[in-house]
Amino acid sequence: MIGVVCLNPALDVTHHVAAVDWSGVNRPDEVHARPGGKGLNVARTLHALGTDVLVMGLAGGTTGQAVTAALAALAVPSAFTWVRGETRRTFTVVDGRTGDVALFNEPGPRIAADGYAEFRARYASVLSRCAALVLSGSLPPGLPDGCYAELIAMAAGAGVPVLLDAHGEALRLGAAAGPAIVKPNLAELEMFAGRPLSGPARGLPPALSSSGTGPAVPDRQAVAAAAGELRAAGPQAVVVSLGPDGLLADTPDGGWQAVPPAVVAGNTTGAGDAAAAGLARGLALGQSWPERLRDAVALGTAAALAPVAGEFTAADYATVRAGVTVTRAVGVDGAAGAARGQAG
Amino acid sequence: MIGVVCLNPALDVTHHVAAVDWSGVNRPDEVHARPGGKGLNVARTLHALGTDVLVMGLAGGTTGQAVTAALAALAVPSAFTWVRGETRRTFTVVDGRTGDVALFNEPGPRIAADGYAEFRARYASVLSRCAALVLSGSLPPGLPDGCYAELIAMAAGAGVPVLLDAHGEALRLGAAAGPAIVKPNLAELEMFAGRPLSGPARGLPPALSSSGTGPAVPDRQAVAAAAGELRAAGPQAVVVSLGPDGLLADTPDGGWQAVPPAVVAGNTTGAGDAAAAGLARGLALGQSWPERLRDAVALGTAAALAPVAGEFTAADYATVRAGVTVTRAVGVDGAAGAARGQAG
Repeated sequence: MIGVVCLNPALDVTHHVAAVDWSGVNRPDEVHARPGGKGLNVARTLHALGTDVLVMGLAGGTTGQAVTAALAALAVPSAFTWVRGETRRTFTVVDGRTGDVALFNEPGPRIAADGYAEFRARYASVLSRCAALVLSGSLPPGLPDGCYAELIAMAAGAGVPVLLDAHGEALRLGAAAGPAIVKPNLAELEMFAGRPLSGPARGLPPALSSSGTGPAVPDRQAVAAAAGELRAAGPQAVVVSLGPDGLLADTPDGGWQAVPPAVVAGNTTGAGDAAAAGLARGLALGQSWPERLRDAVALGTAAALAPVAGEFTAADYATVRAGVTVTRAVGVDGAAGAARGQAG
Repeated sequence: MIGVVCLNPALDVTHHVAAVDWSGVNRPDEVHARPGGKGLNVARTLHALGTDVLVMGLAGGTTGQAVTAALAALAVPSAFTWVRGETRRTFTVVDGRTGDVALFNEPGPRIAADGYAEFRARYASVLSRCAALVLSGSLPPGLPDGCYAELIAMAAGAGVPVLLDAHGEALRLGAAAGPAIVKPNLAELEMFAGRPLSGPARGLPPALSSSGTGPAVPDRQAVAAAAGELRAAGPQAVVVSLGPDGLLADTPDGGWQAVPPAVVAGNTTGAGDAAAAGLARGLALGQSWPERLRDAVALGTAAALAPVAGEFTAADYATVRAGVTVTRAVGVDGAAGAARGQAG
């Protein structure tokens, strides 16, 4: 079983409006409400892959009930700790005329010490049944930044490998606790490194230039250097998700890059979470790094092709998976040192 | 007891954002979630006045639970009929920089025949305990436009007077069923009449010109004529709410106008509902028309002074009430025919 910790779940409400009046009254044509938060996206992907999963986290109020009821309707097993206050909503408005998307993210309930203590006891009692753990997403107000570090230390004590997907101080402290994998995206790695990591498309192989020329392209050398710094801080492996440019991994088995077969223009919300699910499954199954990365890129890309975060079609997954290119990237200068080839 | 029917209640969620990015990610500084829908505003006002009240309506899902739980927390008695589907949310974004307010109103759950039949049976069983009834707000999808007309006929059979606050076809059909009062606002009366009812401030007494000069000022002659047409369609009285210009009433006791003591710049959401509560209480108590209108204007104005729909302070209510001017308005040309004076 893979345990997925989601301390700040959400009810994601989306309104599709034909032509939004930003200073008036709108009647949405379509309304969707779904369980959200990064951990829940990971869990839904794992569940869709047929992997035994248990979601643990903190929930409160009728919004918490809505989240847990929706997870139950999706047959995703969960065991939430109930806290005072109200689970957060995220609210997304999609303007059908301009394509603009506005997001409004509530912070979540303030967690008191007793609520977190109850969660931690439940987490401790489940550890022995987990082949791997995923700790993913923002922390609600009231929880200390070192919370993930503590949960990683508890898992280490029980011999359970952890994938951590966090940002800011929670990532820095969590990385120092030595998880099996940390999976930042470019912005999160930039925040850790304290410097920009994108630049002109100098020295990039064509597949990595898919997001276009110009300053928005990740500078792979800079990314690899920052990943190395992050890895030196404690985790056994660092996997950086680069959106349409795939994954760049710094692992005990060396450096790797994994690139999807073609440019994918789609819904990137949740694509990184689907990739994290692939990595966590590979961790639980003891797959090789090329295999894990291939799966992770295929799941992330298939998720980007689906209209809804946390979903993908088996056909997209299979098609993309066959076309993923996994390449050795030795050292920081992968373009020079790479032994290119289809691995797995 | 006053029965309040709210067939399409809502959970009103409001996000206050310092400076909204309408095509990006926003983190609201303040989040409020409150029971909403016009009927619930009426009920909260009546409850705050110490009036015995019972809210009846249709609710569904966890959003329905949030609404009923919030009403219970406010100690407002309710007896909802539970239906399939999810009670609607309304979502309001307030931009702290520009002052722009964007509203996103979900339509509400589609009501099946069995859900409405169960509500109707409950409504019938409560009628004998009601001194008056308020039917207020939009109908959820699936309910026929003639729904309010049917409920008014049932109330008439039990000898219970009804205040109807509706719009469009539901107002037209409901008015024909002969309720005691219908209370349109200017836009609803314009929709009924099929023509604009505002124009230059010609012939208006100074207090009625408070909303400024120009085309946005209600043309009181035109309003009075349209109110007469609506009254001819069936209701015993028509009370038109004109925002800061107060109320204009066409009643069995003649024409009346009631004007607040000063221009009120405030939160007009729910002010019309507070006025409806005042009218309904006057109906239940058998107050004179000037007394009802004075109360209604005072409550509407006090509600506009409060930051939250459905709330007001007793001090504002008392202060405003003492300054309301109630004037006879004979015929359509109230400025010529009025016998001005403090009534009540």
